[in-house]
Amino acid sequence: MNFLNEVTARFPDAVSFAPGRPYDEAFEPSVVAGYLDAYAKYLERDRGLSQRQVGGLLFQYGRTKGQIHDLVAATIANDEGIEVPPESIVVTVGAQEGMLLALRVLFRDFADVLLVASPCYVGITGAARLLDIAVEPVPEGPSGVDAGAVRAAADRVRASGRRPRALYVVPDFANPSGTSMPLSARHELLAAAVEQDLYVLEDNPYGLFARTAQRVPTLKRLDEHRRVVYLGSFAKTCFPGARVGYAIADQPVVAPDGSVTLLADQLSKIKSMTTVNTSPLAQAVVGGMLVTYGCRLRVLNEERIRRYRERLDALLAALGRCFGGDPGYVWNVPGGGFFLVLTVPFVADEAALTRSARDHGVLWTPMSYFYAGAGGDRQIRLSCSYLEVDEIDEGVRRLRGFTRDA
Amino acid sequence: MNFLNEVTARFPDAVSFAPGRPYDEAFEPSVVAGYLDAYAKYLERDRGLSQRQVGGLLFQYGRTKGQIHDLVAATIANDEGIEVPPESIVVTVGAQEGMLLALRVLFRDFADVLLVASPCYVGITGAARLLDIAVEPVPEGPSGVDAGAVRAAADRVRASGRRPRALYVVPDFANPSGTSMPLSARHELLAAAVEQDLYVLEDNPYGLFARTAQRVPTLKRLDEHRRVVYLGSFAKTCFPGARVGYAIADQPVVAPDGSVTLLADQLSKIKSMTTVNTSPLAQAVVGGMLVTYGCRLRVLNEERIRRYRERLDALLAALGRCFGGDPGYVWNVPGGGFFLVLTVPFVADEAALTRSARDHGVLWTPMSYFYAGAGGDRQIRLSCSYLEVDEIDEGVRRLRGFTRDA
Repeated sequence: MNFLNEVTARFPDAVSFAPGRPYDEAFEPSVVAGYLDAYAKYLERDRGLSQRQVGGLLFQYGRTKGQIHDLVAATIANDEGIEVPPESIVVTVGAQEGMLLALRVLFRDFADVLLVASPCYVGITGAARLLDIAVEPVPEGPSGVDAGAVRAAADRVRASGRRPRALYVVPDFANPSGTSMPLSARHELLAAAVEQDLYVLEDNPYGLFARTAQRVPTLKRLDEHRRVVYLGSFAKTCFPGARVGYAIADQPVVAPDGSVTLLADQLSKIKSMTTVNTSPLAQAVVGGMLVTYGCRLRVLNEERIRRYRERLDALLAALGRCFGGDPGYVWNVPGGGFFLVLTVPFVADEAALTRSARDHGVLWTPMSYFYAGAGGDRQIRLSCSYLEVDEIDEGVRRLRGFTRDA
Repeated sequence: MNFLNEVTARFPDAVSFAPGRPYDEAFEPSVVAGYLDAYAKYLERDRGLSQRQVGGLLFQYGRTKGQIHDLVAATIANDEGIEVPPESIVVTVGAQEGMLLALRVLFRDFADVLLVASPCYVGITGAARLLDIAVEPVPEGPSGVDAGAVRAAADRVRASGRRPRALYVVPDFANPSGTSMPLSARHELLAAAVEQDLYVLEDNPYGLFARTAQRVPTLKRLDEHRRVVYLGSFAKTCFPGARVGYAIADQPVVAPDGSVTLLADQLSKIKSMTTVNTSPLAQAVVGGMLVTYGCRLRVLNEERIRRYRERLDALLAALGRCFGGDPGYVWNVPGGGFFLVLTVPFVADEAALTRSARDHGVLWTPMSYFYAGAGGDRQIRLSCSYLEVDEIDEGVRRLRGFTRDA
């Protein structure tokens, strides 16, 4: 990714389909004070805390597992129909820390292997590398990961004398591919997880941003056998600068002395060695946003859902206008999220990216970045989350110009 | 520590010398808005950013190495005389994340061993455990760690066929012991580090809170051979709820291709796999505090320095009144900080702690918690940071009562 950052810095006027970050919003410092105030009032009124206790919760060290876990539990119940006790939630420094904690708790033997949907978000492979955990790719199809591919990967791992321990997957509008798993595939995947004795790490940063009103339930919602550790993020649904996410780990764990705790408590123990706790101040701002919108991110994000939908629609329309009818170019039509993949008839490597930026003023991400081994050579990821509609139109025109030269 | 938390919860009316956290302050949500505003104005005025750019810096994802590194560099130059380029600083989620990053970068071989001052802060041993790094204790004397003990520990490690890689030490008002290293011992320790090819992880959370105006320079200030990675924290000097700390890693690193970067860049690469970045919002609040006080924590903390001094003086005076002349009881007289150690003529274990809490209403921390192996059986840690002077007086009276029964 360093190369991409360098190219971006060298060509600041290029239209960039590269960054997967939320669009900039006018988010004033005074808004922060308002949310802090809303959270403080909630603590005083609904939880009966004194002003001194409220000050302690906002500005002192806090509970390692987090202090907005009750609000998070209410929110995921409202938005996703996921019903878990607040005690099974660990508030993390973004979903990234959740990945690290989950991997550290679940993987304790060098023979344990992590299966990852491929192409794959680099955050999970980075966390695995940090902990020296081996990774086995599970190739995605047009509908994401399917149970057959998971079984085949698990078999490969066992044949090599190792143990498949968990699968990382983004079932909704995946980064980088934009694919989503249909309902039947989700049920099959969960059955395969039970059969193969696999944990499933479900990462869901984009689920709220569907193009249509109807959404498919998350794996966690369908998880009858508690195979799923769910990784949530408020980066896209509140704001990235909070660095607040969470992990749901409601699996019971029996200690050697027979006492039962939750997997969340094991994550929390590891968290005391990574960051001690997630900034109480940042949690309070997110907590204030949740309280203000009745613990319904869907309501809080109405405008964003509309705008991301508009951007993805604009990208699809522009691709149709500029590339439609040319058999050399194929792209998928995601049901939501920030990303799609365009397959091109040339090698889309860093040299091509440099020409695209320098000669045509348009940036994108080589899909090969998201493969552990070979793959994605003739594919590019286009992200529309950060661009205005007119920039998307102009960017696709430039991209068409570049591909004529490529 | 779980036991301590449980006892604390069971006896909420006990005077507690256990928590090492800062005292509660009236820190209003509106104060946060003021600091955010100060930081935003600094970005606009001093760094020429537009309002949109400022919004992006506060609320979007940020630079992995952090975005208040220039202010941190100015502050440590003003307060500690440590002159390093801002690029050698990584802003972390508290000093805890700094420990994790430094250990992960410096330790890549299972034969590498971490030397730790003993008794020792549990955060560093926790981070080492997370990464499966072996730890070798270096016994502290009344003046902290000395070079001879470091050499002896390094020899023990080498004799076992392993390699001493780094030493963790808190040279100023250590947690838990309260000891400090004199200037000559610091020079000798740095010489030993060069001779033994050791990195030194210098953790300095309490350095600002000296009982006297005169302070001894930090190891980093004296570090002519770049052996020291310095771990800083704003938890005690700004507020804990920000969860903002930093690591200084100004060591040049030569890559296989001959290019030179800084050790800080390696820490940053690991950070992209742990937390991606430290909450930009939390950094902005800390940045606003630094800007408001001219990047001088000594000025920002004038009142706190006075109050912590008053508390430590009160604790020492109360011990003198209640235990003075009794040869069974000895305590050290720290030059500052939050902690001191009382040696007692009985075993100060969890059973004793329970009796102390239940029958006498006073809590403390068994020093044995801070030893990896045996040690501290007849010692207790007393922390005065969180208590008012009258609570300290009452607490020591209760402690005297408990010891008569013990």
